[in-house]
Amino acid sequence: MSAEELLKEIKEYIIRNLPGNATITDVQFEGPEVVIYSKNPEIFSNTFIKEIAKVFKKRIAVRPDPSVLTDPETAKDKILEIVPEDAEITDCIFDVNTGEVIIESKKPGLVIGKEGRTLEEIKKAIKWAPKPVRTPPIPSETINAIRATLYRERAEIKEILRKIGRRIHRDVQLKGDVWVRVSFLGGAREVGRTCNYLQTPECRIVIDCGINIAVEGEKAFPHFDTPEFSIEEIDAVVVTHAHLDHCGFVPGLFRYGYDGPVYCSRPTRDLMTLLQKDYLEIAEKEGKIVPYTTKDIKKCVKHTIPIDYGVTTDIAPTVKLTLHNAGHILGSSIVHLHIGDGLFNIAYTGDIKFEASRLLEPAVCQFPRLEALIIESTYGGQEDILPDREKTEKEFLRIVSETIKRKGKVLIPVFGIGRAQELMLVLEEGYNQGIFNAPVYLDGMIWEATAIHTAYPEYLSKSIRDRILHEGDNPFLSEVFKKVKSTNNRRNIIDSDEPCIILTTSGMLTGGPSVEYFKALAGDERNSLIFVGYQAEGTLGRKVQKGWREIPITGKNGKSKVIKVNLEVHTLEGFSGHSDRRQLLKYLRKLKPMPEKILMVHGEASKCVDFASTAHKLFKKETRAPMNLDAVRVR
Amino acid sequence: MSAEELLKEIKEYIIRNLPGNATITDVQFEGPEVVIYSKNPEIFSNTFIKEIAKVFKKRIAVRPDPSVLTDPETAKDKILEIVPEDAEITDCIFDVNTGEVIIESKKPGLVIGKEGRTLEEIKKAIKWAPKPVRTPPIPSETINAIRATLYRERAEIKEILRKIGRRIHRDVQLKGDVWVRVSFLGGAREVGRTCNYLQTPECRIVIDCGINIAVEGEKAFPHFDTPEFSIEEIDAVVVTHAHLDHCGFVPGLFRYGYDGPVYCSRPTRDLMTLLQKDYLEIAEKEGKIVPYTTKDIKKCVKHTIPIDYGVTTDIAPTVKLTLHNAGHILGSSIVHLHIGDGLFNIAYTGDIKFEASRLLEPAVCQFPRLEALIIESTYGGQEDILPDREKTEKEFLRIVSETIKRKGKVLIPVFGIGRAQELMLVLEEGYNQGIFNAPVYLDGMIWEATAIHTAYPEYLSKSIRDRILHEGDNPFLSEVFKKVKSTNNRRNIIDSDEPCIILTTSGMLTGGPSVEYFKALAGDERNSLIFVGYQAEGTLGRKVQKGWREIPITGKNGKSKVIKVNLEVHTLEGFSGHSDRRQLLKYLRKLKPMPEKILMVHGEASKCVDFASTAHKLFKKETRAPMNLDAVRVR
Ligand SMILES: [Zn+2]
Ligand SMILES: [Zn+2]
Ligand SMILES: [Zn+2]
Ligand SMILES: [Zn+2]
Ligand SMILES: [Zn+2]
Repeated sequence: MSAEELLKEIKEYIIRNLPGNATITDVQFEGPEVVIYSKNPEIFSNTFIKEIAKVFKKRIAVRPDPSVLTDPETAKDKILEIVPEDAEITDCIFDVNTGEVIIESKKPGLVIGKEGRTLEEIKKAIKWAPKPVRTPPIPSETINAIRATLYRERAEIKEILRKIGRRIHRDVQLKGDVWVRVSFLGGAREVGRTCNYLQTPECRIVIDCGINIAVEGEKAFPHFDTPEFSIEEIDAVVVTHAHLDHCGFVPGLFRYGYDGPVYCSRPTRDLMTLLQKDYLEIAEKEGKIVPYTTKDIKKCVKHTIPIDYGVTTDIAPTVKLTLHNAGHILGSSIVHLHIGDGLFNIAYTGDIKFEASRLLEPAVCQFPRLEALIIESTYGGQEDILPDREKTEKEFLRIVSETIKRKGKVLIPVFGIGRAQELMLVLEEGYNQGIFNAPVYLDGMIWEATAIHTAYPEYLSKSIRDRILHEGDNPFLSEVFKKVKSTNNRRNIIDSDEPCIILTTSGMLTGGPSVEYFKALAGDERNSLIFVGYQAEGTLGRKVQKGWREIPITGKNGKSKVIKVNLEVHTLEGFSGHSDRRQLLKYLRKLKPMPEKILMVHGEASKCVDFASTAHKLFKKETRAPMNLDAVRVR
Repeated sequence: MSAEELLKEIKEYIIRNLPGNATITDVQFEGPEVVIYSKNPEIFSNTFIKEIAKVFKKRIAVRPDPSVLTDPETAKDKILEIVPEDAEITDCIFDVNTGEVIIESKKPGLVIGKEGRTLEEIKKAIKWAPKPVRTPPIPSETINAIRATLYRERAEIKEILRKIGRRIHRDVQLKGDVWVRVSFLGGAREVGRTCNYLQTPECRIVIDCGINIAVEGEKAFPHFDTPEFSIEEIDAVVVTHAHLDHCGFVPGLFRYGYDGPVYCSRPTRDLMTLLQKDYLEIAEKEGKIVPYTTKDIKKCVKHTIPIDYGVTTDIAPTVKLTLHNAGHILGSSIVHLHIGDGLFNIAYTGDIKFEASRLLEPAVCQFPRLEALIIESTYGGQEDILPDREKTEKEFLRIVSETIKRKGKVLIPVFGIGRAQELMLVLEEGYNQGIFNAPVYLDGMIWEATAIHTAYPEYLSKSIRDRILHEGDNPFLSEVFKKVKSTNNRRNIIDSDEPCIILTTSGMLTGGPSVEYFKALAGDERNSLIFVGYQAEGTLGRKVQKGWREIPITGKNGKSKVIKVNLEVHTLEGFSGHSDRRQLLKYLRKLKPMPEKILMVHGEASKCVDFASTAHKLFKKETRAPMNLDAVRVR
């Protein structure tokens, strides 16, 4: 059935079966959804919408016809009129494409009203569907900029969605012999430039498209010279999470002609935008070749279709996508693809943490069906047993407390997203328990990343979510955290005698404020430096970690000088966002159902190979550590 | 360097370095060769030609400028004038594209003359380069038709060769990171439709392109829906041997737009043309869909560049091809590819016999360099131990002799190429030794295939070659063999009381004269039937082999009747043209050098897997049994 025929059938079905008289003005594909526009959308009961969805096996949305919507300015006035002032409304965000208005307020209960009566009143008055949410505790520039883009470009975005919708629902002739294969364009037997290219006779799907920021030249980017790769043929791009080794090249795809959808969780969309912009800025500053511009990042945002965990979505004629929590960073997802009506199911873990952290729930390990799995292997080697998290936290707080006691400063160079927020939670608790008494300064990208975390409490661990939502006790807002607002501010912190903790980017001392802090604090033996992440060979961080006591550097005036390293240097491995070997094997053990084929990627060659061989012996399944440029048939 | 620049440099080099005054009229790429046309080609010494080849690393040929060649008719008269009549010249074949004339005679010594004086005289008189050969003992329609095509279409062929030459020598930018991968479009974990697609960043090469005649529909043909396959991008097609599971689809490539070279041995070119035509005839007769026509077979012939064993040839900018004897059937080759100046070497065995047969030498197992090997696995399973060849021959002759003694007829359904000629050699010896005394009738394609065998004595085993060339004692010409010339002739053989042996196609009683003989001879218990090849499930042969004593068939009038099977039924497995498991493992043991990667193909799934796993354990190398649609990176 062609897309047009399907729309016609749905329309006829509604007219035939809907009790009451719906004025339907349009039925359209918009991205993966079928959207019904009506002048009286309230006539569609949820039961009836679910019925249509079931009959046609499509995601269905019913929206008010734009002609009945009050114009946003008048509508906002109306809302402020209806809702009591005590609610403290901070913003009303109108989404023309969905007919929804997000009402941000400090007391969303007052926007809802008793038994939802206030909401009903709003809806009647302005026709927009009101969505009350709590005002995000920390404003995020990234989220605001994305919202502004989506609003400004709403007409173009609607066109994009309709084009995508028609492509997803295009007519294909299903043949008997359906094969499925995955080509590895990058990130196989290596970490960095992850790019998986899934192919069926009908479809082409890119899952992650990263860059390796640690190397220069061609090897920084995936193998786009893989013969089967064709940018014109891509049906969809799916992104597991915001780390650049998974999403760094996505805007580049748009630069080179891609014009289709990008599917990911909403936090991934925001965080990846933040990181892509940061990557461009740094690369430009360092005079490196950049494969795209901010224009391409914006294009990417406009083509992104956010997907909630657990919601199944058509992304190509025979392919359905479901995202599941991966436990790695905010919004990180396991990608589950269901190919050809129940025929074949494959999941790709992206990066996973199979253990509850303070910030996130552990990765999902149960799926309705599963024939093949692609799993990460960062810590898949025999020796890759990470220290216990609880002990690590204790050790961490001990170092902090002792340094503070001797009037020193604690410098923690850290990656902005994930680990920084995890440490904030540990520090907040330690501070509350009186283990130390000193301010925690947040510098670099950390504050903005934290803002995005607080905007999506539903993606955080249950305990943090509860604290944010129900108890009004948001740990990220603790008085112990101070944002470093300016270079001046930073200078003052460095120069002052006040003992303090400094959480700052970059994590490997390769640039950003952490280098500045290091230079200033290295000489004083009262200070401590704590590494909590991997230090790559060749970085300043690695040298310090290895125990260099004198480090030659080039000053701003071009002259070389020597930094004496007198501060205490510690390395704590137990905060990793990745599963260690035991957790990876436990993940396979708990996995339900157990797939017949398991492919190991995202790790040094020896770790992928070792993990594959161990898993083969333990679980008696076909396992493999593919190479870049291998195409592996999975069905 | 561009192709044009290279030609210019070669020309300048010759002018600068050739002693004497050569009149060069043209320097051109023709296929893989650089051809120098000169009005006085005799001035080029072999030493000088070798020097040019070495300096430029190209195959060099020097040919007379067409303007100096005597026209073929006058030239033929001249030859007959110069050569003594006793030589019995039977044909002069002029090849305008090479400036050569093949002089076929019964006594080639007389064409050569004392110390080559007669040859010299001919050359001086007509300018063509004379190549004296012995008149083929049996005329081959296939060879004559091919020669006629090549002569008639010589102008077009020269254009084809020049186009190919320019493509081979095109300018490519070699990057540092050269990868090599092989995609399996067919023949992986199966027998039939073999098709390997080798890719480098610059080149695409198809090695074998077969069909599976045992199945119908899509599965009969390779997976041309493999995403990286692109008919426009193919640089070269290489064919290992003439069996349809390796070459059956090659004319189809031309049908669908391929326009480049096909490399194979000269006997493979002739035998594959014979078999492709036969396939078309049978398929049309049975009303099956055929993927190409005789026009495409002709196109394929015109694009075929024959390669001798052991001669290294450029077939793409960074790829050199060498063919080596595979011991399987006449002209069957192991394909050795040398990629990117010494960088990487891969060999593909095609089908191999690693044991001397009466007809052929065993497969070559030593290569200058070898990093990866793709090997067949037809008999790679644990149980696949074939009976000893010598014992099999004895048993075979015993059955023949006993059947003849009791006045019976021996029916041997056999595949026309290879096994038929092998049995002819056994029968010829048995007849000479007086083990039986009865005629051997050859029906179906066998006679024509035998003619092609005798045209290429240099491809046969040393002992047979010596008999044919030096002793004038050609076993295929033995009086014991009688060609069945007509349906009438066949009828007479069946009706007569004379004991005899009948060697005839098809080998599985699926069509051809063998079915007719079987129907007529099945009822008489004095007769014997000997199966010497694999009988596929579902064929009449399989039923008889399994011991059915009553077989219902549909007669020509559409009525069904029952054939009573009273003749003796024997199966002899020891005549296989494939290596059995022991020979395959021995091949790997003798292989020099031992490659790091070995891929097992061309066998049932369990046999490929079992062979791969055994080889891995024995030789500690990476082995694998890829699937169709897998793309395996080998470097
Ligand atoms: Zn990650
Ligand atoms: Zn990663
Ligand atoms: Zn194993
Ligand atoms: Zn064969
Ligand atoms: Zn074969």
